Amino acid sequence: MEFELIDSLVKRIGAHPQVLIGPGGDDAALLARPAGNLVATVDVLTDGVDFLLHEVEPRRIGRKALGVNLSDAAAMGARPIGALVALCLPKSGGRRLAEQLYDGLLPLAAEFDCPILGGDIHTWDGPLVLSITVLAQATAAGVLRRSAAQAGDRILVTGEFGGSLLSKQFDFTPRVREGLSLVQDFGVRCGMDVSDGLAADLNHLATESGLGAVLDVSKVPISEDAHRMAAAEAQREDARTPLEHALFDGEDFELICSAPAEVAERLLASPPHGVRLTDVGEFVAERGLWSRDERGALSPLTPRGWVHSLDD
Amino acid sequence: MEFELIDSLVKRIGAHPQVLIGPGGDDAALLARPAGNLVATVDVLTDGVDFLLHEVEPRRIGRKALGVNLSDAAAMGARPIGALVALCLPKSGGRRLAEQLYDGLLPLAAEFDCPILGGDIHTWDGPLVLSITVLAQATAAGVLRRSAAQAGDRILVTGEFGGSLLSKQFDFTPRVREGLSLVQDFGVRCGMDVSDGLAADLNHLATESGLGAVLDVSKVPISEDAHRMAAAEAQREDARTPLEHALFDGEDFELICSAPAEVAERLLASPPHGVRLTDVGEFVAERGLWSRDERGALSPLTPRGWVHSLDD
Repeated sequence: MEFELIDSLVKRIGAHPQVLIGPGGDDAALLARPAGNLVATVDVLTDGVDFLLHEVEPRRIGRKALGVNLSDAAAMGARPIGALVALCLPKSGGRRLAEQLYDGLLPLAAEFDCPILGGDIHTWDGPLVLSITVLAQATAAGVLRRSAAQAGDRILVTGEFGGSLLSKQFDFTPRVREGLSLVQDFGVRCGMDVSDGLAADLNHLATESGLGAVLDVSKVPISEDAHRMAAAEAQREDARTPLEHALFDGEDFELICSAPAEVAERLLASPPHGVRLTDVGEFVAERGLWSRDERGALSPLTPRGWVHSLDD
Repeated sequence: MEFELIDSLVKRIGAHPQVLIGPGGDDAALLARPAGNLVATVDVLTDGVDFLLHEVEPRRIGRKALGVNLSDAAAMGARPIGALVALCLPKSGGRRLAEQLYDGLLPLAAEFDCPILGGDIHTWDGPLVLSITVLAQATAAGVLRRSAAQAGDRILVTGEFGGSLLSKQFDFTPRVREGLSLVQDFGVRCGMDVSDGLAADLNHLATESGLGAVLDVSKVPISEDAHRMAAAEAQREDARTPLEHALFDGEDFELICSAPAEVAERLLASPPHGVRLTDVGEFVAERGLWSRDERGALSPLTPRGWVHSLDD
């Protein structure tokens, strides 16, 4: 019975001081008035497109479905205040699956003080679908925009890039605390999270700011998993270097931000929450995307990355 | 290309004074701080469960997917402030389908001043899924609760019941204005919307208030479509009367509310926004659900209605 599943999940979700009416409590949730402007985002993950249910532990899928939304809140420099979880569950095994999804989802929600406000549980003959909405409040300092970079700004990135397929695409920690600190403590105005790939998303940031970007490729922080993937595929025709993985893989869920040189200096001297923070280049007035090698030579960089397509 | 579809939808959605960052504008939407506590609700509709895409115009499906969420906001007596629209589109024909869904969704959003804040578009080999989140603000007068009925309160219902299968399940108008007026103008504290059926949802209201309810079945407003369905199936073994349709069909998306006798009298004298409003009985201290006929005879009423089930 769906009601029993909902009862079980409601018990696990528990109470939260800001949640005036929580899941199962009424026709809708009621949340204390946000302290600032309201950030809202939704992401859908489906079996067969975003993950393969027969290959990945459901716990990790649940975690990721919330995580990608928290990453969007982080990309705005906003503080999460609640999530709505809509699930389409396969009829067979649906109840156990839902509990397992929550095994991953709840600890992440707790880590970021983002209570589950409510949701919808749907059972059907189709594949697993997770549609999670995250609400967040903007601080008085404003939000991170994609369009706010200025020519001459430094390009800073958190963490490391590439090889997310091996683990990070599910196990990343959204940069919520870092995003908030960028806005509140350093007055940063421009940023986004990296889902499509460092090159592609840097290009988005530059384009939406009406600028170009020069990426010092020798400075790009490359993850160990990017090296591992490159080593494993070394004999293949489509082998990629660790740097190529870092530039084009995507689903790193790190932040790219833009900051004037003096702000960048302060940030690099004391990175928010001790995050690894790297200066990887600069925004320039001329539109385009370039890689710059250690000798300063520029070459055009094609922002490959995930491109979704519809057949018609 | 998905980007083209998104561009097209973003243009159709347009700007709204409360939406500081709208769809396609950044990593998430930014909405001006709500005037009150925040109501949030999500509902998922899927092809094959909630509708049959090959039988129903997509425009009506899009309208309904937003409408059921607006009806949840109405059931709280809250004012909608925005919606997030997540779609899983079949790869073939997905773009045209999305435009048609918006043909139904946008006029309803405009009617209730509920701007589309953003969403997610997903394409896959599976059936159509719509997952819509509606945000609303509670007024200073509070919200309608399911648990707030008092013994002796009158049971009032908006509109008419039964036969929603013929049209109303798609074409209903959510009782947003009426719900707001109940709370703000009449101080009503208890109500919900009818999705599972009048008998089942009245039973929910009574149970969550720790009460019972007596339904004057001769007073239940029966829709013309309930009569039509009863007439059409009169020769069948499982034929139901118009009243049975009104009590058990569901998806009426009307409001049931509970009000002290003197408030009920004022409400019936000047119904909010001219809605048809009917007194159909009273809440009683003894738990249970009864029907009462014109001569005052009571008999137990079984709250049949939609019961979703999981196979395990």
